[in-house]
Amino acid sequence: MLAPGDLQLTEAAVPSPGDGQALARVKYLSIDPTMRVWMVVDTYLPVVAIGEVMRCVGFAEVVESRHKDFKKGDKVMGLTGLQDYTLIDGSEKRGFHKVPPVPFVSDTAFLGVFGGNGLTAYFGMMEIAKPQKGETLVVSAAAGATGSIAGQIGKIHGCRVVGIAGSDEKCKWITEELGFDAAINYKHPDWKEKLAAATPKGIDINYENVGGEIMQEVLKRMNLFGRVVLCGLISGYTKEDPGLVSLGLILVKRLKVQGFIILDFASRFMEAATQLGKWKMFGKLKDRETIVEGLEKAPDAINMLFTGANIGKLIVKI
Amino acid sequence: MLAPGDLQLTEAAVPSPGDGQALARVKYLSIDPTMRVWMVVDTYLPVVAIGEVMRCVGFAEVVESRHKDFKKGDKVMGLTGLQDYTLIDGSEKRGFHKVPPVPFVSDTAFLGVFGGNGLTAYFGMMEIAKPQKGETLVVSAAAGATGSIAGQIGKIHGCRVVGIAGSDEKCKWITEELGFDAAINYKHPDWKEKLAAATPKGIDINYENVGGEIMQEVLKRMNLFGRVVLCGLISGYTKEDPGLVSLGLILVKRLKVQGFIILDFASRFMEAATQLGKWKMFGKLKDRETIVEGLEKAPDAINMLFTGANIGKLIVKI
Repeated sequence: MLAPGDLQLTEAAVPSPGDGQALARVKYLSIDPTMRVWMVVDTYLPVVAIGEVMRCVGFAEVVESRHKDFKKGDKVMGLTGLQDYTLIDGSEKRGFHKVPPVPFVSDTAFLGVFGGNGLTAYFGMMEIAKPQKGETLVVSAAAGATGSIAGQIGKIHGCRVVGIAGSDEKCKWITEELGFDAAINYKHPDWKEKLAAATPKGIDINYENVGGEIMQEVLKRMNLFGRVVLCGLISGYTKEDPGLVSLGLILVKRLKVQGFIILDFASRFMEAATQLGKWKMFGKLKDRETIVEGLEKAPDAINMLFTGANIGKLIVKI
Repeated sequence: MLAPGDLQLTEAAVPSPGDGQALARVKYLSIDPTMRVWMVVDTYLPVVAIGEVMRCVGFAEVVESRHKDFKKGDKVMGLTGLQDYTLIDGSEKRGFHKVPPVPFVSDTAFLGVFGGNGLTAYFGMMEIAKPQKGETLVVSAAAGATGSIAGQIGKIHGCRVVGIAGSDEKCKWITEELGFDAAINYKHPDWKEKLAAATPKGIDINYENVGGEIMQEVLKRMNLFGRVVLCGLISGYTKEDPGLVSLGLILVKRLKVQGFIILDFASRFMEAATQLGKWKMFGKLKDRETIVEGLEKAPDAINMLFTGANIGKLIVKI
């Protein structure tokens, strides 16, 4: 959770693009758990400094350009920051790239199912989990933007898929709409028994987004030589030691635990997006969005990730 | 540590071997951290029940046999238990096998460098760590029976090898005798700074025997895409949750953490023992033993593992 004042709304003049720069109007912001981590520690990106614009992936439209690669009207994605307008310079440090027009695909899909979440689920499942027919996959934060796709990729590959989520509504969505075989609401007191009942053959793959107590319980049900895709540890992002977990079960069950960051697969994004697109076109991949309106609501939106108020991809529309 | 009374010395008549059985006199007992775990929880083997003979790997000599595979005078190894005599039955549940006579190899070497410790170090390094020339390897419990061999295998493969141990004497042994590039005594208050200074290029491989705070500090210095060989977690064996470690660094640094148990590689023991033997013959692998005399001293010997009183392989001689 954010404390009041962690993020402050300030006003500044809209900048004019200089030579080699372009100005873009931000339309949609991707609200992701990793933002909370960026505020606290250096990770794969340096910590956001006090006074800096908060880092955020966004979808924007170029309104004025003196940059050779962008022209007015271009749709772009990159680290726009939590702001109304963003200046694209030549440095490429914020990864701006044009979004090609694709029929039947909404702008916001480029932030979710075809964006960071879809790509993360794709590479975590295909490169680390390597799901085999008949295996049991358990996904935590299963109604989230990444978890919901990871679980569906498991179904596509013939796995028994069990999701863990924090409300009955989420559980209903992932089983009835997405086709998960079972869903566990971890806020019910008997969730551990239900997890055991839903995984009669144990668990072969854990696609982990949460860490802490939920992960610990999943580890207890892992089969020998199982794989843990360490995608996120949201239960610990506001604590000093995120995702504190006992390693004893990892040793004794000979598990393989692997952390990954989607940026490592940048050269293969097109391959992944193409596959995700095919699955979506053939109805094998469904997505859902929770849209919050107004830049000033961004801090509330970030907190929704930690209270579990969103289902599917969480987006701020400006 | 053991509490007084956890193990009790009792007397019983020496059994006579029935049909298909053999009686062996136990000569040496291998004292290993895993014994403490066997006393507490079901792992890869069921927990030792109250009243049972404490489980232990031992080296014994057959004194009387009505078993077709063993004759008087045969040297054997297996789960003899902490006792003077052991009855070998046909069930093979305790893995008894004959030890062939090998020139220049002592009986006790079959419990250490050519036994569980050497094989564990071999497969952990060769199959999980896969050390490459120029990489930095950090081994915890580096003066122990397994760690000391794992580090030397790293040196054989051209790694910079840094050991973490609990006394200046141990540090001196692994650097001056075994050829480690540096050693860190974690009982010195500035050990974390010394670890940083000894790993100027970060750490590529962590051969982990300890867990807890020591592992956490090593993880901080791991390079991206590093490998953690999860061999042991002795810092937590007497606590409820062994090896509690924050997974945040594993995720952010995209580490691969893999648990393993030597029994998984049983079909390749001969290959490993042969390679270890060659290295030892050519002086590339040195070992050391701490021998405690008397079966009644076995509980004290087990505690030495937790107080750090032994260097190299710890053996009880009966």
